Amino acid sequence: MIYLDHCATTPMSAAALEGYRKTAERFYGNEQSLHDYGEEAAQLAAHCRKQLAAIIHGSEKGIYFTGGGSDSNITTLLSLAYGRKDRGHHIITSPFEHPSVGQGLEKLKTEGFTVSVVDGRRNGEICLDSLASLLREDTILVTICHASSETGVLQPLEDIGELLRSHQALFHSDCVQSFTKIPIDVTAAGLDAVSMSAHKVQGPKNTGASYIAPGTDWEAVYPGSAHQHGFKPGTLDIPGIAAFTEAAVEAAAVMNEQEDRWRAMQQWFLRELDPAAYQLFGDRDKRLPHHLALRVVHREGQWIMLECSRRGIAVSSGSACKTGASSPPASLAAMGHTPEEAHGLFRISFGRTTTYRELWETADILNELAGV
Amino acid sequence: MIYLDHCATTPMSAAALEGYRKTAERFYGNEQSLHDYGEEAAQLAAHCRKQLAAIIHGSEKGIYFTGGGSDSNITTLLSLAYGRKDRGHHIITSPFEHPSVGQGLEKLKTEGFTVSVVDGRRNGEICLDSLASLLREDTILVTICHASSETGVLQPLEDIGELLRSHQALFHSDCVQSFTKIPIDVTAAGLDAVSMSAHKVQGPKNTGASYIAPGTDWEAVYPGSAHQHGFKPGTLDIPGIAAFTEAAVEAAAVMNEQEDRWRAMQQWFLRELDPAAYQLFGDRDKRLPHHLALRVVHREGQWIMLECSRRGIAVSSGSACKTGASSPPASLAAMGHTPEEAHGLFRISFGRTTTYRELWETADILNELAGV
Repeated sequence: MIYLDHCATTPMSAAALEGYRKTAERFYGNEQSLHDYGEEAAQLAAHCRKQLAAIIHGSEKGIYFTGGGSDSNITTLLSLAYGRKDRGHHIITSPFEHPSVGQGLEKLKTEGFTVSVVDGRRNGEICLDSLASLLREDTILVTICHASSETGVLQPLEDIGELLRSHQALFHSDCVQSFTKIPIDVTAAGLDAVSMSAHKVQGPKNTGASYIAPGTDWEAVYPGSAHQHGFKPGTLDIPGIAAFTEAAVEAAAVMNEQEDRWRAMQQWFLRELDPAAYQLFGDRDKRLPHHLALRVVHREGQWIMLECSRRGIAVSSGSACKTGASSPPASLAAMGHTPEEAHGLFRISFGRTTTYRELWETADILNELAGV
Repeated sequence: MIYLDHCATTPMSAAALEGYRKTAERFYGNEQSLHDYGEEAAQLAAHCRKQLAAIIHGSEKGIYFTGGGSDSNITTLLSLAYGRKDRGHHIITSPFEHPSVGQGLEKLKTEGFTVSVVDGRRNGEICLDSLASLLREDTILVTICHASSETGVLQPLEDIGELLRSHQALFHSDCVQSFTKIPIDVTAAGLDAVSMSAHKVQGPKNTGASYIAPGTDWEAVYPGSAHQHGFKPGTLDIPGIAAFTEAAVEAAAVMNEQEDRWRAMQQWFLRELDPAAYQLFGDRDKRLPHHLALRVVHREGQWIMLECSRRGIAVSSGSACKTGASSPPASLAAMGHTPEEAHGLFRISFGRTTTYRELWETADILNELAGV
């Protein structure tokens, strides 16, 4: 089997799995308990906060553990919106967000917040002029992802941060797809908050983190929780957190070399595909290094995915978090693609273990499928 | 070290840990993905639903996976309240609930729901007459735990279910402390919904389940999620779910023998303690088999906990989910105890591996501490 769906989820690395096992055996205490078992667990959590914060050039005081990327997005958006509700109720987002961002914002809409969506550009970036024109005095929050899981296109975080520098609005970015894949510098980008997920970086599922820059106003979604200063109720999953940290540190240590290797693979793979049959969605360069959003003329992306699966190759036809949705992705419509073009979307995403041989086999099958 | 805080959290069993490892290596797909990796993950999740449902005599269609006990409580309470909001806004709870129940209800209060609290009895049970008198035409939900983590006292679920049988109100019970420790029969007790946690039964942290009887109205907290019919956004943690199921099935298989063993230990331990110094909170018989809520005259529970910890014994001074709370537990006030008595609370909870030798050493130290 060839697994080319690493943007949906990744297998745990051997180090992460071993880290999970060792921690589960040794540090199983509840970090809220005041006895030694609890104290040791709390110390390990603090160590992990420090290591994760360093990867995004943030402060360890800003790390809050969550139940994964969706939970990071929803909990962070609600907490920030509640914390700023006295200053306004207007939020800006993009058409390139993960479904969980939309779910959090829909919840906020039922509570009196209003949401505007910036325009997208043909290449998959947001339109900065559109963002500037949507900013209002009562805008309290702007949430724009670092990279769309559907298109793979990178958003210009530093430009957005610059635009927001003189505005009260907080800047949150869903960095689930980019974390440990390309550099993130929360200070340079003027980011107040960031979402991360463990299972996209060969860590465990059900684990992730939110970063909220110390000093930023936020208010607990569920008042009265003792855990993590009230950010999220529930016993901390110390083994999951340790395994997440192990995986993230492992990935961050080789990030630059891995990015170069993936970018070479990405361009090589594009050249292998029949140019008459295959088209790339979004910018060719400003994209995640391990991600390709493609379509084959006159075929549905879902058909390509199923035919690949029959041949032992796992690719994706859109976000795994939106299965069953029959309408074409809003992200592609925002880029000016027709519904027919959008239905053609399928996605290939590499992992650290992906080989050229696997890519060569896959390109061969895709060219064969295009010719049927 | 002697670990007697199993109601706060438990170490993962060897079988659960091995189940986690094997599943992480083999079934790492995103169960929402339509390729074979996704399909295999979805099948394993279905198998786990079936096994968990059987333990509580429910239907596999009613199992939803969560991020643990707190998440189960909060998500279930909100989902049920939203699903019934057209029929009323009144909810009834007890003074014996886990903090997460209170957190969910506080959130609902900000959204226009009202909450009444039933009276407690001296023995730690709720007062059924009080419940009957609080029931109104617009009561849509009653949430009363199976067993309080603070007092260990069991609530009369079947009597409550009987009382609610002819009323529209849904019946939810936080069964986190009782699941696989004593029998739960959702049908016999007339339960519409139940909360469970993995890490209290030697499964992984960050994992749990809600049971909502098929046919019960509920509405998604975050609209638009594809996962689990919208119950909870986020990629399913298949390794965590498999490990949870492994641990739960393992515990359920020996539940009756284990309960007898724990009850014998419980009574033996009580007899070992100096009766002039130690008092039991709550009913001596209607309680969790592995739990003792105690106080020593003229000492704070926290002092006992810290002195035990210094001697290598982990006991608890109240819920680990409420660290930092300086007010005495509301549960004990509801039972008629004075603040001074309530401050004396400490808790001892056994695990499957707890030995008489460990209990004997602990009783010895407690008697010594009482005599200081």
